[in-house]
Amino acid sequence: MAVYTEVGDAELEAFLADYDIGEAEALKGVAEGVENSNYLLTTTKGQYFLTLYEKRVDPKDLPFFLGLMDHLSARGITCPKPIHGRDGNAIRALAGKPAAVTTFLHGLWPRRIGVHHCGPIGEATARLHLAGRDFAIKRPNALSVQGWRLLFDGVRAHADDVARGLARELDAEIDFFEANWPQGLPGGVIHADLFPDNVFFLHEKLSGLIDFYFACNDALAYDVAICLNAWCFEPDRSFNATKARALLQGYDKVRPLTAEERRVLPLLARGAALRFLLTRLYDWVHTPADALVKRKDPLEYLAYLRFHRRAESLADYGL
Amino acid sequence: MAVYTEVGDAELEAFLADYDIGEAEALKGVAEGVENSNYLLTTTKGQYFLTLYEKRVDPKDLPFFLGLMDHLSARGITCPKPIHGRDGNAIRALAGKPAAVTTFLHGLWPRRIGVHHCGPIGEATARLHLAGRDFAIKRPNALSVQGWRLLFDGVRAHADDVARGLARELDAEIDFFEANWPQGLPGGVIHADLFPDNVFFLHEKLSGLIDFYFACNDALAYDVAICLNAWCFEPDRSFNATKARALLQGYDKVRPLTAEERRVLPLLARGAALRFLLTRLYDWVHTPADALVKRKDPLEYLAYLRFHRRAESLADYGL
Repeated sequence: MAVYTEVGDAELEAFLADYDIGEAEALKGVAEGVENSNYLLTTTKGQYFLTLYEKRVDPKDLPFFLGLMDHLSARGITCPKPIHGRDGNAIRALAGKPAAVTTFLHGLWPRRIGVHHCGPIGEATARLHLAGRDFAIKRPNALSVQGWRLLFDGVRAHADDVARGLARELDAEIDFFEANWPQGLPGGVIHADLFPDNVFFLHEKLSGLIDFYFACNDALAYDVAICLNAWCFEPDRSFNATKARALLQGYDKVRPLTAEERRVLPLLARGAALRFLLTRLYDWVHTPADALVKRKDPLEYLAYLRFHRRAESLADYGL
Repeated sequence: MAVYTEVGDAELEAFLADYDIGEAEALKGVAEGVENSNYLLTTTKGQYFLTLYEKRVDPKDLPFFLGLMDHLSARGITCPKPIHGRDGNAIRALAGKPAAVTTFLHGLWPRRIGVHHCGPIGEATARLHLAGRDFAIKRPNALSVQGWRLLFDGVRAHADDVARGLARELDAEIDFFEANWPQGLPGGVIHADLFPDNVFFLHEKLSGLIDFYFACNDALAYDVAICLNAWCFEPDRSFNATKARALLQGYDKVRPLTAEERRVLPLLARGAALRFLLTRLYDWVHTPADALVKRKDPLEYLAYLRFHRRAESLADYGL
């Protein structure tokens, strides 16, 4: 639940001495987020966000994540902007963990998704893709098709406890994707986790994107496919084509999808559903029952996957 | 963990329309606290604290809690000050729960307790006692001696699983206190939960007290006894008489303890240790293993209780 590491008042004071952001006036552990320890830090100069990177984040990836936020901020994308210390470094250490301070983003993430959210999501995703084009550091997507088999190996034995026949269905999906994953699509930096809790709105307008800790290099259209899963299914697991159309039209307005991207989008969406199904399944099986993290139901994504498998073209997505 | 109830952006907007504190710019669930859902709310006018009262708080007690914070704030005690709606009410409803907004207090709670914290704690406790004298609403202490038997009945069967012989020892303690609990001491409003995470410091000075949701009417010296348990034991469970002396001298400076209060303080401290031992035991036994709340070791308080049982006078507390 997002405060795994306690930060002492004395060590915080020493930590802040290396920055030029004033002195601490308050530090509140934030309940959201499951990967890292997050704090809302109030100083004499304003509000900031403090993150301590826990075991799921590889410290070697931090220059990519923080560099990307710097890069995107400089290109007008509203995302947390890393605060650099007096020595220029944005990645420091606190309480024995790698740590970074960023600006604090205003906005609320939407709890109930409406069609009016989906156009802006599409536009913001496309803007992010354009802004990321000249970012120099590369980070392959460890959670794309070449990682799925390994992920599934770690949960296959438990899959049928979650749903009967699931192991066989997932084996077939992975076999299929290993043979048929689209290649040669336009690539670049993708966010890879643009779920509603990572997108802020303020006065009905999209006000910022957060949580770049799954960002990586991959097919741009795969990011769109992730968004279709994250934004366009209703609580009863039915697909809302009106939302999908708004999202795709929003994207197209900023960066038109190529004919090939459009053709393979159902396949990418099906792959994206599989990817989240696998990680949810993994967490479901491996999260100790007494953990501080709420486990998410993997079967939601099984329903999504089956929808995309039945889809034949963009007509099924409202276009 | 402390976020049991999700607050939607649209319902927050409607809720804030009844106040004069601006529009929401951010809402972050706060990880600290285990009783209620707490949010740090940033509006166009500043930072506030939003609490949704969950099942452990009886809505009938809210006029006491919020009235007390109003009362103490008006008398110069730095504590969260309830924000009243346009209709004058401080207690409202949000997401189906009773809810209140208060001012946001600056400061950090000390993770490593030093002697220098203890004098200010004593002084602040005494100031709170003086400021609470003319508060009109009464709330009996449900967690004092008359509640211990019932609390223990709910865990007796599991006590020996936690420590061998614990059931018998606690039975004897409760028998003893039912016959020997000090009566007729100076009474008034006590905080009843002044643990380090409820006390903020800023630049080495005590900057505020929070979490009044155990506050009640009881013997004032019992509050001091709770503080002795909360602030004066070391991580190895040994008692630090230097801290106790600082705490008691700080208290005495503002409100001198009577001779009778001084005489029975070891007894009150032993009772306070029993009270926290019982509630921790209760939580230990009744918190599902997969709960979002971290359970605290009850045996810490068994060590404290035994220390106070051996103590004979205030000389054992550094005076």
